[in-house]
Amino acid sequence: MATPIELGDLAEQLGARLEGDPATPIHGVATLEGAGLGQLSFLSNPRYRKQLAACSASAVLMREDVECPDSFAGARLRVADPYLAFARASRLLNPLPPVRPGVHPSASIDPAASVHASAEVGAHAVIGPGACIGADVVIGSGCHVGGGVSVGDGTRLHPRVVIYDGCVIGRHCILHSGAVVGADGFGLAWNGGAWEHIPQVGRVVLGDHVDVGANTTIDRGALEDTVIGEGVKLDNQIQIGHNCVIGEHTAVAGCVGIAGSTRIGPRCRIGGASMISGHLEIVGGSEIAGGTAITRSVTEPGVYASVFPFMPFAQWRRNAAQLRHLDDIAKRLRQLEHGAGVITPSDPPESE
Amino acid sequence: MATPIELGDLAEQLGARLEGDPATPIHGVATLEGAGLGQLSFLSNPRYRKQLAACSASAVLMREDVECPDSFAGARLRVADPYLAFARASRLLNPLPPVRPGVHPSASIDPAASVHASAEVGAHAVIGPGACIGADVVIGSGCHVGGGVSVGDGTRLHPRVVIYDGCVIGRHCILHSGAVVGADGFGLAWNGGAWEHIPQVGRVVLGDHVDVGANTTIDRGALEDTVIGEGVKLDNQIQIGHNCVIGEHTAVAGCVGIAGSTRIGPRCRIGGASMISGHLEIVGGSEIAGGTAITRSVTEPGVYASVFPFMPFAQWRRNAAQLRHLDDIAKRLRQLEHGAGVITPSDPPESE
Amino acid sequence: MATPIELGDLAEQLGARLEGDPATPIHGVATLEGAGLGQLSFLSNPRYRKQLAACSASAVLMREDVECPDSFAGARLRVADPYLAFARASRLLNPLPPVRPGVHPSASIDPAASVHASAEVGAHAVIGPGACIGADVVIGSGCHVGGGVSVGDGTRLHPRVVIYDGCVIGRHCILHSGAVVGADGFGLAWNGGAWEHIPQVGRVVLGDHVDVGANTTIDRGALEDTVIGEGVKLDNQIQIGHNCVIGEHTAVAGCVGIAGSTRIGPRCRIGGASMISGHLEIVGGSEIAGGTAITRSVTEPGVYASVFPFMPFAQWRRNAAQLRHLDDIAKRLRQLEHGAGVITPSDPPESE
Repeated sequence: MATPIELGDLAEQLGARLEGDPATPIHGVATLEGAGLGQLSFLSNPRYRKQLAACSASAVLMREDVECPDSFAGARLRVADPYLAFARASRLLNPLPPVRPGVHPSASIDPAASVHASAEVGAHAVIGPGACIGADVVIGSGCHVGGGVSVGDGTRLHPRVVIYDGCVIGRHCILHSGAVVGADGFGLAWNGGAWEHIPQVGRVVLGDHVDVGANTTIDRGALEDTVIGEGVKLDNQIQIGHNCVIGEHTAVAGCVGIAGSTRIGPRCRIGGASMISGHLEIVGGSEIAGGTAITRSVTEPGVYASVFPFMPFAQWRRNAAQLRHLDDIAKRLRQLEHGAGVITPSDPPESE
Repeated sequence: MATPIELGDLAEQLGARLEGDPATPIHGVATLEGAGLGQLSFLSNPRYRKQLAACSASAVLMREDVECPDSFAGARLRVADPYLAFARASRLLNPLPPVRPGVHPSASIDPAASVHASAEVGAHAVIGPGACIGADVVIGSGCHVGGGVSVGDGTRLHPRVVIYDGCVIGRHCILHSGAVVGADGFGLAWNGGAWEHIPQVGRVVLGDHVDVGANTTIDRGALEDTVIGEGVKLDNQIQIGHNCVIGEHTAVAGCVGIAGSTRIGPRCRIGGASMISGHLEIVGGSEIAGGTAITRSVTEPGVYASVFPFMPFAQWRRNAAQLRHLDDIAKRLRQLEHGAGVITPSDPPESE
Repeated sequence: MATPIELGDLAEQLGARLEGDPATPIHGVATLEGAGLGQLSFLSNPRYRKQLAACSASAVLMREDVECPDSFAGARLRVADPYLAFARASRLLNPLPPVRPGVHPSASIDPAASVHASAEVGAHAVIGPGACIGADVVIGSGCHVGGGVSVGDGTRLHPRVVIYDGCVIGRHCILHSGAVVGADGFGLAWNGGAWEHIPQVGRVVLGDHVDVGANTTIDRGALEDTVIGEGVKLDNQIQIGHNCVIGEHTAVAGCVGIAGSTRIGPRCRIGGASMISGHLEIVGGSEIAGGTAITRSVTEPGVYASVFPFMPFAQWRRNAAQLRHLDDIAKRLRQLEHGAGVITPSDPPESE
C-alpha cells in the first residue's frame, strides 16, 4: 500500500541528518524486530539498542546522541524526537486514501442538504435537511448525518457513524465506526412514581482535528452544548455525558466514562477505563492513571491514581476483608499509641 | 425549534401560581446563568439564589417558600418541585418532532411484516418477517428490526438500532443509536479443549416507557427471557447480560455492566461505571454509587459504595503497596494489643 | 422454533445412557423450574436436586452418580458432563437458521469483490473491492465489509457489523451487531503543542471459531497485526487495543478493556469489567476475577483479583478516608512494634 520514497527525500522532509545512501528506497515502516529491506524503523528509547544491533531495516530514526551499534548495517536518520519523526515518516509513506468526490447512488440525501462537490458520500448514507457537508469530506457507508448538522472541511466519517440533528463537527476530524454524537443526555426528573424526560436542547460541538474512536458516544447538552475542544483525541468505547467541556489537545484512552457537566482542562491525559464523576473540574495538564475513579475536582496538575492493586485471589480475599475494618484498625492503633504515650495524628476527613 | 407559549397558559398547564404578567411569551428554557428574554429557568436548590439575583430570564420556576431577590425582574412560577415542573415546561416548549407516517422507499420491509399506517420507517431500515410495528412508531434510518419482533405504539428507534428476532419492545420506549437488543448471551460450555455454544433461546422483553441509551446492549435470555421492567431508564454504553430482570423504574447510568442472571429490584439507582456480578439479587430501592463493584446480593435497601479513593500517584503507590499487606497489618496490630493486654475483636470473615 | 427429536435418538447423539422411553418426543430445552412436557432440562450441580424433585421436564440430563428423586417422573439421560451435553442437545434442538444463498438487491457489492455462491448477503450490506466472502457465510443487513477483507467459510456477521479494510476473519466465526473490527489503534505522537497521528498499518486477524460480542471493538495493529487466536470468545462491549495478541480458547466477559500491545496466553478466563494495561504478558491458563485491574504482567497461572469490596456508604467513607493513610498506619505500627521490642518485616516494595 505504501508509496516508496528515497531516503534523501525523506530526510529532507523530516529535517533529519542522514548517515547513509540518499538513494535508498523506503517503502514502509516496521518495528526494530520486524523490519527488513526497504523499511524504516525507529529507536525511541536507548534501552532497545540491543534490538537495533540485530535490526535488518534499511534505515532507522534515532537521536544524535545515541551511539549506533556497528552491527547495524542500515542508514541512520538523526532527529531530535525519533517517535515523532517516525509518525511523520509513516504518514508520508502511508497517506490517507484519496477522497473520491461524488455521492453513491444508494445514499439518501435530503434535497435541503448541501454537499460540497469535492465530498465523498458512501453507500446507504443518509444526510438530513439543512445539513452542510464541507469540502473533501468523506461520509462512510451507512452513516446517518442528521438535519442541520455541519461537517467541516477535510473531516472523515468511517462507516456507520451517527450524528444527531443540529450537531457541529469541525474540520479535519476523524470519526470511527459506531460513534454516536448527539444522542440525548441522561436527563430525568422523578415525579414520585416514575422518571420524566427533560428534553436535551443543547448540541454537541466538536472543534477541528478531533478524533472520535469506534463506538464512542458523546451526548448532546441538556440546555447548553457539550463541547469537545480542538485537537482532542478520544479512543474507543468512551462515554461523554451531557454538558461536558473537554479542553483542547486532551487525550482520553479507551473505555473511559465522563459523567455529565464535568469540565476537563486542556492537555490532560486520561488513562483507559477511568471514570470521572459529574459536575467536576479537572485542571488542565492533569494526568489520570488508567482505571482511576475521579470523584472530586482536581485543582492541582499532577498524576493521580486510585487502582486497587491486583493479587492472587486468596490474598486479595484476606486483605479485602480487612479493608472493611480499616477505620477500626486505625482507631485501635491510635489507642495503642495513646497507651504507649505516642502523640497521634488527628483523624482524616472522611472520603466522599 | 421551540414553540412559544404565554406564561399564563404555561402556569395553568404546570399547576403553578404565577407572579407576573400572564401574557409574557416564553419560547424556550435555559440555565439561570444563560437565560434571556423569552426564556424560562428554574431554581431547584436555594443555594443558587445568588445566580437568580443576576438572572435575565423572563420567568423562573421556584418553590413557594423561597424568597425571590428584588433584583430579579422576571416573573415567578411558584411550584412544589421546580425541577420536575421545569422538565414538564421544557417538554411543552420542545415537543418531540412529529411522526411522519410512511415508509421510505429505500427501506426493506418483509412482505410478512405488519407496519401500522401511522408509523414512520426511515431510509435503509430493514424489518423482518412477522415483525409488528405499532401506531405512531418511528423506526430510524438504518435500523434492523428482526423477524417476529413487536414494537409497541409510540416507540421511537433512533437511527441504526438493532433488534434481534423475536424480541418485544413496549409502548412509548426510546432506543438510541447503536443500541443492540437481543444479541446472544455469553453462554458457553467447555469441552476440555474448546468452548461450545449454548443456543440462547430466550428473548428480550422491554416494558413500556423504557429508554435505552446509545450503544447499550441487552442480551437475550439463555432459556427464559431477559426482562426490562416498565419505566426503566438505561443510559449509554450499558451491558445487560442474559436472563437479567430489571425492576420497574430503576435507572442505570452510563457504562454499567450487569452480568447474567442478576435480578435488580424496582426503583433502584445504579451509578455510572458500576459493575454487578452475575446471579445476584439487588433489593428494590437500592442505590449504588458510581464505580461500585457489587459482588454479592444486596438484601437491605441503602446506599452502597466501593471506590478506591484517588490520590496523587506517589501517595497511591505507597498506600497501594501496603494494601497487599493489610491482613498482616491487622494481625500484627492484634498481637501488639494482646501484648498490651487489650481484648481484640475476632477476625473478619473473608471477602468474596 | 425447535425441531422435535425422539429421546432415543437424542441419547445416541449425545452418547448418553437413557433411563426411560426412547420414543418420548423432545422439542425444546428449559430450566429445571420452567420445563414442561416435551422439554429437556439438566442437573449440573447436585445441590439443585430439590428442584429436580419438583421438575416437570420430559427428560433430564444428569451424571451417573447422582441419585434421582422418586418424585421426578421423567426420563433420565445419564452423561459425564450434563452441562456440556445440554449445550449439545440444545444445538440439536435449536439449529442455526439455514443460510439462504444470494445477495439482496439493495446490497452494494464492489465488482472487484468475490462472494461465494452459497453465501447470503443482507439488505444494504456493503462489500468493498477485493473482499473475499467464503462459502456458507452470512453477511447481515447493513454490514460494511471493507476492501481486501477475507471472511472464512461458515462465518456469520449479524446486522451492522463493520470490518475495516484488509482484515482477516476466520472460518465459523460469529460477529454480533455493532462489532467494529479494524478501526485505527490509538497511536499518537505529541509534537509539543498537539497530537499527531501514527498510521495504523497492521490488520486484525481473527482465527477460526472466534466469537465477537455486540458493540465490541478490536483495533488494527500499528505496525504488525492484532491477532485473536482460534476459538477465542469475546462477549459484548469489549475493547481490544492495537497489537494485542489473544491466545486460543481464551474467554473474555463483557465490558473488559485490554490496552495496546498486551499479549494474553491461551485458555485464560477474563472476568467482566476487568481492565488490562498495555504492553503486558498474561500467562496462559490465568483467571482474572471480574472487575480486576491488571497493571503488571502475570507470569504464574492462578486466579487474580483486585476489587475494592462494596459496603454501606457511610462505612465506605470512613474506610476509604483511612486508605489514604495506610502507609502512615503501617509505619506507625512498625514504630510501636519497635518500641515493644518486636522484630518487624521490612517495607513492601512500592506498587506500580
